[in-house]
Amino acid sequence: MATSSASARPTTSAALDIPDDLGGAIAACCTPLAAAPLSAADADRLAAVLKAIAVPTRLRLLSMIYAREGGEACVCELTEPLGLTQPTVSHHLKVLVDAGLITRDKRGVWAYFRPVPGAMNSLAAVFGPAR
Amino acid sequence: MATSSASARPTTSAALDIPDDLGGAIAACCTPLAAAPLSAADADRLAAVLKAIAVPTRLRLLSMIYAREGGEACVCELTEPLGLTQPTVSHHLKVLVDAGLITRDKRGVWAYFRPVPGAMNSLAAVFGPAR
Repeated sequence: MATSSASARPTTSAALDIPDDLGGAIAACCTPLAAAPLSAADADRLAAVLKAIAVPTRLRLLSMIYAREGGEACVCELTEPLGLTQPTVSHHLKVLVDAGLITRDKRGVWAYFRPVPGAMNSLAAVFGPAR
Repeated sequence: MATSSASARPTTSAALDIPDDLGGAIAACCTPLAAAPLSAADADRLAAVLKAIAVPTRLRLLSMIYAREGGEACVCELTEPLGLTQPTVSHHLKVLVDAGLITRDKRGVWAYFRPVPGAMNSLAAVFGPAR
């Protein structure tokens, strides 16, 4: 998978402290908040994922990809609805890839993005009722 | 409801941009991300709530309160498990109150915190399947 060309253009000043192995971490993390006090390690992992998505543009990108008919969106289709440049959009998408919420597939000149199966359900379960 | 004495001791440098009327906003916000592209206004509101909880200590406090037998926790019981001072814990709790996720009730010398009914379910629904 090629790295995003937009990584040189961060749009947030704060460094995102997402561990290298965060991809998939949300699938293993965590028990529902209402079930038992969260461990420090689980809290760190969950906070990193939430920090990645706690940005309006990233939430809109996530919903555009997850609500997509066919389950795949080209970066070329994601810029115009947001009124942002492609490097800016690509930067936000890279953060979401690093957080394990979407995958990136470069085909030809464009990159295509898909939901990571189970990632959103895991987030829903964290905030859902104790089981 | 008295204001927290800890507001003079923020533990994050970034100002939290939570609108005054955010309390209850999460109950009205939003359709599942997988149902339709999020509007800019809904993305702003949801991002503000997520930003409030994207901090390990706040996630641990949330789970300690939501998983609490009896549904109520005294601030006096929340400091020791975290190894933090009461002003620091009170600051984090105030952010969670402002975000509409918990309520605060001052009785005697202590403040007591409870879940806001429906708030966590609304967050779960945002990340849940399209209905």
